[in-house]
Amino acid sequence: MTLHRAVLRLATQDRPGLVADVSALLFRLQANITDANQHVDTDLNQFFQRIEFIISAQSPEHRLQIEKEIGAACEGWGMRWVLRFPDESLRRVAILASKRGHAPLDLLQRHRAGELPCEIAFVLSNHTDLELEVTRRGYRFIHEPIVNKDRADQEARIRRHLEAERIDLVVLARYMQILSPELVAPWRERIINIHHSFLPAFAGAEPYKQAHRRGVKLIGATSHYVTADLDQGPIIAQDVIRVSHRDSPEAMERKGRDVERLVLAQAVQAHLEDRIITVGNKTVVFE
Amino acid sequence: MTLHRAVLRLATQDRPGLVADVSALLFRLQANITDANQHVDTDLNQFFQRIEFIISAQSPEHRLQIEKEIGAACEGWGMRWVLRFPDESLRRVAILASKRGHAPLDLLQRHRAGELPCEIAFVLSNHTDLELEVTRRGYRFIHEPIVNKDRADQEARIRRHLEAERIDLVVLARYMQILSPELVAPWRERIINIHHSFLPAFAGAEPYKQAHRRGVKLIGATSHYVTADLDQGPIIAQDVIRVSHRDSPEAMERKGRDVERLVLAQAVQAHLEDRIITVGNKTVVFE
Amino acid sequence: MTLHRAVLRLATQDRPGLVADVSALLFRLQANITDANQHVDTDLNQFFQRIEFIISAQSPEHRLQIEKEIGAACEGWGMRWVLRFPDESLRRVAILASKRGHAPLDLLQRHRAGELPCEIAFVLSNHTDLELEVTRRGYRFIHEPIVNKDRADQEARIRRHLEAERIDLVVLARYMQILSPELVAPWRERIINIHHSFLPAFAGAEPYKQAHRRGVKLIGATSHYVTADLDQGPIIAQDVIRVSHRDSPEAMERKGRDVERLVLAQAVQAHLEDRIITVGNKTVVFE
Amino acid sequence: MTLHRAVLRLATQDRPGLVADVSALLFRLQANITDANQHVDTDLNQFFQRIEFIISAQSPEHRLQIEKEIGAACEGWGMRWVLRFPDESLRRVAILASKRGHAPLDLLQRHRAGELPCEIAFVLSNHTDLELEVTRRGYRFIHEPIVNKDRADQEARIRRHLEAERIDLVVLARYMQILSPELVAPWRERIINIHHSFLPAFAGAEPYKQAHRRGVKLIGATSHYVTADLDQGPIIAQDVIRVSHRDSPEAMERKGRDVERLVLAQAVQAHLEDRIITVGNKTVVFE
Repeated sequence: MTLHRAVLRLATQDRPGLVADVSALLFRLQANITDANQHVDTDLNQFFQRIEFIISAQSPEHRLQIEKEIGAACEGWGMRWVLRFPDESLRRVAILASKRGHAPLDLLQRHRAGELPCEIAFVLSNHTDLELEVTRRGYRFIHEPIVNKDRADQEARIRRHLEAERIDLVVLARYMQILSPELVAPWRERIINIHHSFLPAFAGAEPYKQAHRRGVKLIGATSHYVTADLDQGPIIAQDVIRVSHRDSPEAMERKGRDVERLVLAQAVQAHLEDRIITVGNKTVVFE
Repeated sequence: MTLHRAVLRLATQDRPGLVADVSALLFRLQANITDANQHVDTDLNQFFQRIEFIISAQSPEHRLQIEKEIGAACEGWGMRWVLRFPDESLRRVAILASKRGHAPLDLLQRHRAGELPCEIAFVLSNHTDLELEVTRRGYRFIHEPIVNKDRADQEARIRRHLEAERIDLVVLARYMQILSPELVAPWRERIINIHHSFLPAFAGAEPYKQAHRRGVKLIGATSHYVTADLDQGPIIAQDVIRVSHRDSPEAMERKGRDVERLVLAQAVQAHLEDRIITVGNKTVVFE
Repeated sequence: MTLHRAVLRLATQDRPGLVADVSALLFRLQANITDANQHVDTDLNQFFQRIEFIISAQSPEHRLQIEKEIGAACEGWGMRWVLRFPDESLRRVAILASKRGHAPLDLLQRHRAGELPCEIAFVLSNHTDLELEVTRRGYRFIHEPIVNKDRADQEARIRRHLEAERIDLVVLARYMQILSPELVAPWRERIINIHHSFLPAFAGAEPYKQAHRRGVKLIGATSHYVTADLDQGPIIAQDVIRVSHRDSPEAMERKGRDVERLVLAQAVQAHLEDRIITVGNKTVVFE
Repeated sequence: MTLHRAVLRLATQDRPGLVADVSALLFRLQANITDANQHVDTDLNQFFQRIEFIISAQSPEHRLQIEKEIGAACEGWGMRWVLRFPDESLRRVAILASKRGHAPLDLLQRHRAGELPCEIAFVLSNHTDLELEVTRRGYRFIHEPIVNKDRADQEARIRRHLEAERIDLVVLARYMQILSPELVAPWRERIINIHHSFLPAFAGAEPYKQAHRRGVKLIGATSHYVTADLDQGPIIAQDVIRVSHRDSPEAMERKGRDVERLVLAQAVQAHLEDRIITVGNKTVVFE
């Protein structure tokens, strides 16, 4: 008899009796619900649920059977569903970075401190600036430069790494290249990006210089799932930091880095803890 | 056939099947669950649930019967439970204040703007400073001074007002008198207080002067249920505001007032929306 | 011999010796500097200074002569300068509003509490919804509707009120009409507006619905001086408030109102305390 | 002719003409003031000033002479003063840690990213847990355990390291030992500590468990100069992070670490940028 911790995420059109149906199912399977969160988006008439439970199985076969039963029931109810046993299958994560170290190295530090339940397969960059810092910390570094401006070729190589290492989650930790829709599609809702956000928004180059010239009082960061539409995917986490006229563009950028790495870590953690459900271009992030 | 919006709050010792039991009950009563939140405090082995649902009743008698059925079931399961129909019985609120207007007048403004689902029966003060501002806004003002230092007598008069007006919730909006345990007991978990909070804490008079002298960088406010133990009741909401050496004690106090009224309003709103469950000296505040 | 508190704000091209020049001048006038703040924007090569000082004058003539001397010196140095004696000439403020009360009534409450050093001449609206609440609080209310869609005519009437009442500062407290460049020009840097801000920005109607659909995690507000370019004037203050998927568009709007009124009050207060200097499309706000 | 960037910090009893005196002196020395901040604490009748300026010297002797002249003038005026040439003499920093890595490793990462203008001489711990992580990053690690409970002996060894390496600033990055007054005295205002802060405060062991049991809604951190009075020295920086009933004691502790490392880095940076002046048990931190 082994105990398994499980997380079930559901999304479906709302209707009476949904909570009762699901909890009756789990009760019948002798699951012990330890945490549950529901949300109904009345605007979209959608029902979302995240249930954490403990289940005891007599054998691996028994556990598989339980999984099947839950899946069959959810299918029968017309639900989108994901069931995970978080302690049994750590996700494999790839971090893509460029030259800047604050975001990728912060993730490594949190991983080392035991805060991120995952395996970090490698940090990949189109530059070598971070190689020493990454390998020093005991992580694998892969250099995949863009050669002769052939970005498609570089992306093909990245893709092979992702596939070879069976990567579940790609984290763009200030990776300064745009991914093609072809690369994004297979990792739908499994690529997380971070970008700075300003009020008002600034188009064009050197946003921190523009922000400085405009005299903004807040610098923000937004992390989101990557979709074909650049920077327009479902938002996972956001935060801001206060700046003033005394902050040079460089100081604004430094404060921006602080909020970026915090917001990226929050998003990655929420993903790894199976707390996110998406609907359309929006997330429900259970706390 | 009338539709009734209901909110059920439950607390009990955790055990397997709780969620299933409750949702089966509601399903049987043909309730349509629109929002639900559970929490298990593993430290205390306590289960907390807040369920919002719509129920249709053929008659007032039918609705009463539904209420009874839910109550009987919860009793049977050994739960602490509260069932409310928020649209049908607005809570009656009394605001107690002293001289300072920011907290009580802010509540009146929010009430007038439709943000607080309640009836405000009166504002009572031991001073007359606020009389004009309260009555101008169209609310009743009661003056109950402490005469000949006889605080027990004044409290007895306050109590008669609370009883005569069938007050459900007492809000101490910077009421500068300590309530006796005799007054607190009958309104257990129905008296909300706000006080400023400092890091570090300051004992004694003129805390803002002390905070200024100590050079604190944050001014905080804490709202909580009042218990016999002054300022030690279950915390409902907290927030802080940033200050610097440039803030005089008066400026700190002004910023402190801003955070106080915000935090008090958050606590009152959470209470009125039936989002709080207490356990021991702690709250679970569902969002 | 009377003591006068004065605030001098300066902006000019940076050069060595500026601070020495100004402080030698003030020393010669026997001013006692109680607070001073400088800032050099190296990007723009601009120098900004705010000096608060106490000056003693033997007579009103003497005080006027001091004023002239400071002005003459600043002109000689090629500076933009403003000298004010804040305790002697309270600014006259007009609040323009529409139907929504949170922003204008919050300003009245702060004014009543002594937080805003100014005279509030009137609250003017194109609707009558706020009339009772404004007059109840003892302030003058002016109704200037747009008749037959003739906005120019309505604006001409507003302008006459502003002139007749010698208004120094116009606060747009959620006034939902756009002012024409003709009205804006004479009150350059003396009209303050508040608007909500989102990350990302939303164009078009019903921004809170859009924000809800997009699943944003922060709602912001920006206050700024009004220029001919709608919502593009120099930013004075900004802040955000946290929201989640649980917030309906209405709840987001309510939280948005909380941050709007706070940010508007901060901006108005900074203006009234002579803490703002503008340069181009940017502010320096001394704390 | 060489240009030297200098920062002068002053504190003295307030009197008229102070700003004029200082700026006349700097003007005579042909200094170009690039930033200046004054503050008068009317409560204490104390004047504080931080001036950043560029000075050109024909030779090292000339520069020394300038230094002497400034010093002599300040002494003559009865001021406490510190003059530093930040680009010429990087401070030497020692980080003291125990087992926890988040605070010391975060400082190393910021140093590596060029955010902290200093030399980090070593990380010293009474445990070996951090050795690999520190040395991997290319920094020196010193292990100084407490042997046979002889804390005085261990402290004597620490002191020898501090003296041998001519340490200017000691950062206690979650160093879990209390320093004796004998060690603190010579590094007065040159030892920075970080500790978590709670509203309300908790005495005794396992504060996060206590905070969890009390249901606090905010977790804070305070960084301060170390004085003989444990945790009571002048506060440099403070911040908080939001928590809820859903946060286990472990999650609270993780969030607490996030705010601790941010607040510690802010304090260290403010110190290294010569932005702090202390008076009594209070700091003025210029922005």
